[in-house]
Amino acid sequence: MINKVLIANRGEIAVRIIRTCKELGIKTVAIYSEIDKDSLHVYMADESICIGPNNVSKSYNNMDGIIYIALKTKCDAIHPGFGFLSENAEFAKKCEENNIIFIGPRYEHIEKMGDKSKARQTMINANVPVVPGSKGTIKDINDAIKIANTIGYPVLIKACAGGGGKGMRVAYSQDDLIVNFNLARGEALSSFGNDEMYLEKYIENPRHIEVQIFGDSFGNVIHLGGRDCTMQRRNQKLIEESLTSYLDDETQNNLYTAAINAAKSVGYLGAGTVEFIVDDNKNFYFIEMNTRIQVEHPVTEMITGIDLIKLQLLIASGNAIPYKQEDVMFNGHAIECRINAEDPDNNFRPCPGKINYIHIPGGIGVRWDSYIYSGYTIPPVYDSMIGKLIIWGKNRVEAINRMKRALDELTIEGIITNKDFQKKLISCAEFNNDTHYTKFIENKYKVSN
Amino acid sequence: MINKVLIANRGEIAVRIIRTCKELGIKTVAIYSEIDKDSLHVYMADESICIGPNNVSKSYNNMDGIIYIALKTKCDAIHPGFGFLSENAEFAKKCEENNIIFIGPRYEHIEKMGDKSKARQTMINANVPVVPGSKGTIKDINDAIKIANTIGYPVLIKACAGGGGKGMRVAYSQDDLIVNFNLARGEALSSFGNDEMYLEKYIENPRHIEVQIFGDSFGNVIHLGGRDCTMQRRNQKLIEESLTSYLDDETQNNLYTAAINAAKSVGYLGAGTVEFIVDDNKNFYFIEMNTRIQVEHPVTEMITGIDLIKLQLLIASGNAIPYKQEDVMFNGHAIECRINAEDPDNNFRPCPGKINYIHIPGGIGVRWDSYIYSGYTIPPVYDSMIGKLIIWGKNRVEAINRMKRALDELTIEGIITNKDFQKKLISCAEFNNDTHYTKFIENKYKVSN
Repeated sequence: MINKVLIANRGEIAVRIIRTCKELGIKTVAIYSEIDKDSLHVYMADESICIGPNNVSKSYNNMDGIIYIALKTKCDAIHPGFGFLSENAEFAKKCEENNIIFIGPRYEHIEKMGDKSKARQTMINANVPVVPGSKGTIKDINDAIKIANTIGYPVLIKACAGGGGKGMRVAYSQDDLIVNFNLARGEALSSFGNDEMYLEKYIENPRHIEVQIFGDSFGNVIHLGGRDCTMQRRNQKLIEESLTSYLDDETQNNLYTAAINAAKSVGYLGAGTVEFIVDDNKNFYFIEMNTRIQVEHPVTEMITGIDLIKLQLLIASGNAIPYKQEDVMFNGHAIECRINAEDPDNNFRPCPGKINYIHIPGGIGVRWDSYIYSGYTIPPVYDSMIGKLIIWGKNRVEAINRMKRALDELTIEGIITNKDFQKKLISCAEFNNDTHYTKFIENKYKVSN
Repeated sequence: MINKVLIANRGEIAVRIIRTCKELGIKTVAIYSEIDKDSLHVYMADESICIGPNNVSKSYNNMDGIIYIALKTKCDAIHPGFGFLSENAEFAKKCEENNIIFIGPRYEHIEKMGDKSKARQTMINANVPVVPGSKGTIKDINDAIKIANTIGYPVLIKACAGGGGKGMRVAYSQDDLIVNFNLARGEALSSFGNDEMYLEKYIENPRHIEVQIFGDSFGNVIHLGGRDCTMQRRNQKLIEESLTSYLDDETQNNLYTAAINAAKSVGYLGAGTVEFIVDDNKNFYFIEMNTRIQVEHPVTEMITGIDLIKLQLLIASGNAIPYKQEDVMFNGHAIECRINAEDPDNNFRPCPGKINYIHIPGGIGVRWDSYIYSGYTIPPVYDSMIGKLIIWGKNRVEAINRMKRALDELTIEGIITNKDFQKKLISCAEFNNDTHYTKFIENKYKVSN
C-alpha cells in the first residue's frame, strides 16, 4: 500500500483526499502557494510545504517543483485532485520517470482522451455512440444536404478550425441549411482563414449524464452508476445528482455498458468519468472522458457507500478493485449543490473575501465537503467553489426537501454566495419535474450565457 | 397529516425534530426557558414562545403551560423528544384530553413500561426472556440456596424495597451466598425498614443491546435492527453503534423476534426501544423498554436510511408504517459518539460556558447532530450533551477509522469537552476487538462509578 502521498492541489479536494488518507493511515504532504498559507489543507496534512507564489505555473502547476518536493519528502505517490495537473499527461509521465505513483490513469490514457478527435475515434472503435456527423470535411452545399438528410435535422454546421462559437450555426431544415452553411463558411474564412466545414447532429436541450467507472491493473472495469449534471451555467455544473427516472432502466444499463466498453477498449486504470449528452428520445452520445476524480464524486459515494478516493488509492497501490459489479448496490438518491463565492445578481461575479461566520447544516442525510472555516479569507486567485453540500434521501423528493432544509441552515457571513440561487434552482418546477436541460439556467433566468 | 407541531423539548433533539418537520412542510412551535432564548431550536422553529423560568417544572416539564401554548398556537400535535415529559403517561393523557396528538405511544403503554415490575411481568407473558430470578420474596437462607442452585451462580441478592445499591450484594458461590444474604438483609432492614429479599441471576460484564421497534395503529410492528450501547459510564451511554459480529445472526434474529413480540403483546404504537443485556454465552435478558425516540436513533437511521422522526410523524398522523419488515435493509456500520461538555480529567464534571469557536468535521460518512454554534453559551442548568458525532462506514473498521478522523477535525474552543476521551475509547484495543462491557470504562480508566 502507498505510504505517503503528496497532494498536488488545494481547496476542498485537497481536504477531501487528506481525510481518506488519514482514515487509511497514509501520511500526507500538502503543498501550497503563498496566499494559501492559512488554507485548511495546510493545517490538516502531516507536512505542508510552500511551493511558490500564487501564480499557478509557479505553484500548483509547477511540475518539477512538485516532483522535487515529493522526492524530498519521500512520498511514494502524488494525488493530483481535479483541475491543475490532474489531466496533464506530461506530469503523469514525469511522475513515472521519477518512480512516483501518479494517482490516476497511465499518461497514455490521458493523452488519448485529452485530444477530442482522438477520443471520438477511440469511442467509435469501441462501439460507443458519438454525436452523428460527417466523416471529415464537406465539399459543398450539395454534399452538406446529402449528409444532413442522412443524420437528420437539426444539424450543427461547424468550422473544422472553429472555436468560441465562430463559424458555428444550427440548421433546422434544408432551407435553413442552405442559408446558414454559406454564412458559417464565410464566418469561418474570416475568423480562421480556413473554410473547411463539417456537420454534426444538433442535440437540442440535452441532458448531461455521466458514468463513473473504475479500472484496475488486472483489466477489471466496473461502473459505479451515473450522475445527472444537467443543471449547468456556461458549461459549469451547479447541481449534480444520481440518475433520475428521466432515464429508464434499460437506457441506464446501455449507458453503463457503453462506459465500460469505452474504458476497457483502452485498458483504463483508476477513476474515470465518461460523459454523454442525452436527447429527448433517450439517445445518448459520448462527449468526453475525464481521466480523474470529479468534483461531483460524492454523489456516487452517497448512493454506493464506496469511498472513491480510497478506491483510487487501492488501485494506485496495485490492488484489484475489491468489488465485483454485482456487489455494487445503489441506494436512495443523492444531490450535490456547489456553493460558490459569487454573486448571481451581478452576472455571477466572483466574490472572494473574509468569512466572518459560518454555520454548517447538520442532521440526517447531510454532508458538507469544504475547506472554509470561520475567519478564513478566500483568496481572489482561484476558482470560486468554496464548498459542496451533498444530500442523501431515500428518494428524489426526500433529497430535494432535505436539500432545501440544509440550504436554509447554511449560513456564510462576510461574502456573497450562490446559496439563495441554489435554493431557487432546487425549488423550481422544472428541476422538481425533472424537465430541465443544459441551457435551462440561461433560458429561464436570462443570465448571460 | 399533522400540520403543526409543538416541540416540548430543547437542545439537540429539538433541532432534530424541527429539521424533519421542515422537510415535510410541517410548521413548528418551539418553547424555551428564559436561559434558552438564544438556543438554536428557538431560531429554527417557525414560532418560538418563552414558557417560563429555567426551573424545568416551570418550563420543559410544565404540562399545563405546554398544552396551553399548543392550543393557543393551534398545534395539532406535540413531540416530547426524549427526557422531560417524553415518558410521562399523565402528560400523554392530558394531550389526548385536549385533542392534541402526543407523538409517542398511548399513555397506557407508557404506564405499563414505566413500572419495572409491571414491565417484567408483561415481558414474561410475551415469552421475552427476563433475568432469571426468584418468584416473589425469599423466606430464608435455605430457600435462597435452593433458588440459587436453580438459576445458577453468580446471583444478585436484592432488597424488594431496594434502590441506590443498598441491600444489594453479589454471591459467586453458596458460601458467598450464606454470608452475603444476611449482610444484605441487614442493610435492607436498616435502610428501608423492610428485609424482604429476592434473588436474580447476576449477569457479569454484560453487553447492552437494544432493538428499535415501531408499531402503528393498524397493529403492524417492525424492527429497525439493533444498537450496541455497551460503552457507558455510570449507565450513561457514551458510544452507540449498530450491531457487531459479537452477536451471531441467529441471536440477532432472536432478539428482533423478542422485541417484536414484546411490542405486539401490548399493541404498541410509535417508536420504542426494547433494551436487553447479553451475557458471555449470548443469552439475552430484557431490562426495560423506552417508550420514546432515543438519543442514539441516528445509528439506526444511518444503516437503514429511514428517518425515524419522519416515521414517528407518519404514524402519529394515523398512517400505517410504509415499510414491510422485508423492505428494511441494513447497510454498513454506524457509530455515534456523544460529545459532552464535561471534563473527563475531573470526574466528568459538567463544563458549561461560552463556545468561542467551533469547526465541524465534514466529508464522507460524517453526520453532526447538535444545537451549538460559534458564540453560543451552554447554560449550566441542563444536561451536558452538546452534540452527537455519527459516522457511517462500509464496515466497523472503516467506521472506527472515520470516527477517529472526524474527532480529530472537531474543534470546540471555549469549553472543555469529552472529545479526547472519546478518541481514547474509540482507539482502545478492547473497543476495536469488541470485548468491552458495560462497566468497562469504570474498570479500565478507574473513573468513579
